[in-house]
Amino acid sequence: MAAAPAVPADLIVTGCTALLHADPAETDPRRAADGIRFVPDTALVIRAGVIAEITDSAGAAASPSRERIDAEGLVALPGLINCHTHSPMVTLRGLVEDRPEQEWFNDWIWPIESNLTPRVIALGARLACAEMIRGGVTCFADHYFATDVIADAVEETGLRANLGEAYFSSQGAEGRARSLDRALGLRGRAGGRITTSLAPHAPYTVSDDDLAATARLAAEHGLPVHLHAAENRAQTDTSLARHGRTPIDVLRDTGLLDVDVLIAHGTGILDRDLPALRAATGRIGVASAPRGYLKFGWDTTPVRALVDAGAHVGLATDGAASNNTLDVWEAMTLTALVQKRAERDPRWLTARQALRHATLDSARAVGLGDTVGSLAPGRRADLVLVDLSGPHTQPVHDLAATLVHSARSADVRTTIVDGRVLMRDGRLTSVDVPSVAGELAELLPDLVERGHGRRIQTYDT
Amino acid sequence: MAAAPAVPADLIVTGCTALLHADPAETDPRRAADGIRFVPDTALVIRAGVIAEITDSAGAAASPSRERIDAEGLVALPGLINCHTHSPMVTLRGLVEDRPEQEWFNDWIWPIESNLTPRVIALGARLACAEMIRGGVTCFADHYFATDVIADAVEETGLRANLGEAYFSSQGAEGRARSLDRALGLRGRAGGRITTSLAPHAPYTVSDDDLAATARLAAEHGLPVHLHAAENRAQTDTSLARHGRTPIDVLRDTGLLDVDVLIAHGTGILDRDLPALRAATGRIGVASAPRGYLKFGWDTTPVRALVDAGAHVGLATDGAASNNTLDVWEAMTLTALVQKRAERDPRWLTARQALRHATLDSARAVGLGDTVGSLAPGRRADLVLVDLSGPHTQPVHDLAATLVHSARSADVRTTIVDGRVLMRDGRLTSVDVPSVAGELAELLPDLVERGHGRRIQTYDT
Repeated sequence: MAAAPAVPADLIVTGCTALLHADPAETDPRRAADGIRFVPDTALVIRAGVIAEITDSAGAAASPSRERIDAEGLVALPGLINCHTHSPMVTLRGLVEDRPEQEWFNDWIWPIESNLTPRVIALGARLACAEMIRGGVTCFADHYFATDVIADAVEETGLRANLGEAYFSSQGAEGRARSLDRALGLRGRAGGRITTSLAPHAPYTVSDDDLAATARLAAEHGLPVHLHAAENRAQTDTSLARHGRTPIDVLRDTGLLDVDVLIAHGTGILDRDLPALRAATGRIGVASAPRGYLKFGWDTTPVRALVDAGAHVGLATDGAASNNTLDVWEAMTLTALVQKRAERDPRWLTARQALRHATLDSARAVGLGDTVGSLAPGRRADLVLVDLSGPHTQPVHDLAATLVHSARSADVRTTIVDGRVLMRDGRLTSVDVPSVAGELAELLPDLVERGHGRRIQTYDT
Repeated sequence: MAAAPAVPADLIVTGCTALLHADPAETDPRRAADGIRFVPDTALVIRAGVIAEITDSAGAAASPSRERIDAEGLVALPGLINCHTHSPMVTLRGLVEDRPEQEWFNDWIWPIESNLTPRVIALGARLACAEMIRGGVTCFADHYFATDVIADAVEETGLRANLGEAYFSSQGAEGRARSLDRALGLRGRAGGRITTSLAPHAPYTVSDDDLAATARLAAEHGLPVHLHAAENRAQTDTSLARHGRTPIDVLRDTGLLDVDVLIAHGTGILDRDLPALRAATGRIGVASAPRGYLKFGWDTTPVRALVDAGAHVGLATDGAASNNTLDVWEAMTLTALVQKRAERDPRWLTARQALRHATLDSARAVGLGDTVGSLAPGRRADLVLVDLSGPHTQPVHDLAATLVHSARSADVRTTIVDGRVLMRDGRLTSVDVPSVAGELAELLPDLVERGHGRRIQTYDT
């Protein structure tokens, strides 16, 4: 135990039971469930946004600190990571329901998205950040337009984010150029909490030439690429029928598997795609958002095959327009449930595996595997405190099972990013939800107007 | 609008937006989504446990009442109904995870259940009631042992319940006799909040003779029957291989489709079973608990086919030993999601259908279709108030979608049964959870002991 230093810590969290990874530097996703343990009476000493020391209550008792949180009876987890979302789309939550994806996109979402003003995006991003902080999410990978506006919301609300400015080839050269400009201009902002990606929309809306150029730019500038690919089986089948290649083949052929890539959804990834993923020289992340796949009647992400192929499978919510929530805790629970059903194997995707996907694997998927995703000295202090005293989480026989299968996002009491407390005992400290929701409500009538006949893009896989 | 009566009401809830059914007496489950509407500025006037009047705030302003709840900004729903659970099994929540059902039953649950003392059952039932009240459940159908002990918990906590004393043919004549004794002895207790059922365990643990005798007793005493049947496809296949009949055939042949029956799960119900269900002269309820089916890797309940066959499909959680929660709100959400996937049809099981299954259809499934399940004059005052002001439920474009796909059980603020407030603004009024959980924790070591080699029953479908 270190002697109490002269300079006070910024924050000390005492008395919690902490989820620790035996080896936070382990990068092999096949060891998913290994080495998660729960250590009672843990104290986390935070300095300059970093976990400086992990000790016990006795060890922390003598350490001076500017702020202390008594977490007696609470469980500390690494903050959850939303590996793929479109945060401002919370503004459209619940507007268009019970429709297949073509109709959903072409008749509703893409006409309405052409109405989005910077003010609506700014409000939507703030509301999304509030929802994520409330639900224990400390970092999100956003794939959307106006990332400069979203960056302001990230800066203000205190979250961590990886931002990718989406583009279609239908926008001409300007789209790709703006995606690069934003990636270079925004990275490092918000005290380093913002990282960036290049963000072509998908192989069916971006040409092979643009994808290949994006791969070259990614390598040149040290940027990852975040895009939709093989979102569902129909996309894969259409791609095969049109040019004899799967979406993953397209990624391989355009060089996107030789840079760090984050693939959204991948429910249409086939066994024949696995060799290409195994042979990738870049880091392959796949973001799985299981709720929306059920809702559209799709298959789910083939997590077991992807893990076997060495991909980092992270958890996600997609945008709330389709998914209705940004609840990564629910994504964790659903991943455990849906993957058991998909594999017809109740022994697969244990609660510990689910926790590993939600923490270290998600951090690796978004390119932050050495920075967050684990409570360990030297990592950024992104963590949540969870209350398991409610009747729905008692008694506790096994903490992993209780967290994954009984607890809910609403049981998160406190959310901390970079050592800053963004929610304390259920109260948000950086977003005024009634004010944001109130202003948004006034703008909704203009937002949902479809009479103009414009459409941001056409869905035609 | 009625003139203010001289005698004060017991409780008036004012200012809520209320979910009302256009025709609460409609009994055809094929009209599932019809007629749900949301009426703003509603006031509910409650007298002697009954909804005496539904009016607006102005209409209620002059009415005297012993108690008023200002529900401005909240949504009032009929209380949710848990159509099949084993409430005391919350004591085993999370103990045995990630195992197929045979191993789960034979190596763990049935040996451990032989340890259950009346005190553990009493504590478990109270904890279960607390969890359900917290999650907006006002009524549950329990299938378990020691229903006399459970009845005390129901009486004390204020919930409504249908209790069925489970029996196996391996218990000899005594099991069936006790099931009848308890059904006759407990019905009407707790001021009429307790109704009862005969509760044979399942066709694979109860002989045809016992099932037929149960059907005769049900008819004789005006009791419904609550049992597991066709829980999964393997059970149906085994039943066919052993004696050429499906579990539903067995129910038909033993007369159980000619009395009011509540079938738990039914995920192994086949198309060939539908004519028997259509021809039933009794009321057919089916309780669907979708979470556990995912966890065991099973198919789900064929809701569309059952609705077409005239069955009342209610929502359920099963016991928390397998399901981990008694969260009927989650069952509602999962039913919408999983049924879309099962039918590969995003237009099926809309949010309004899900709400109807959670309310009127569930009430009919448990035999209370004329008593609860709808906010209507003359019905018992079982209702919940839901807060949609959180960041995860804003903005609201469509209340049905927000309730089913964005809201969570934790958004229930107030739970009322028979006009009695069991949770007020998040605080339980009838159960001391820390006391119950504390005593239970002390009893757990003895509870989970398996060294004695006893087993309550053997799972061998």
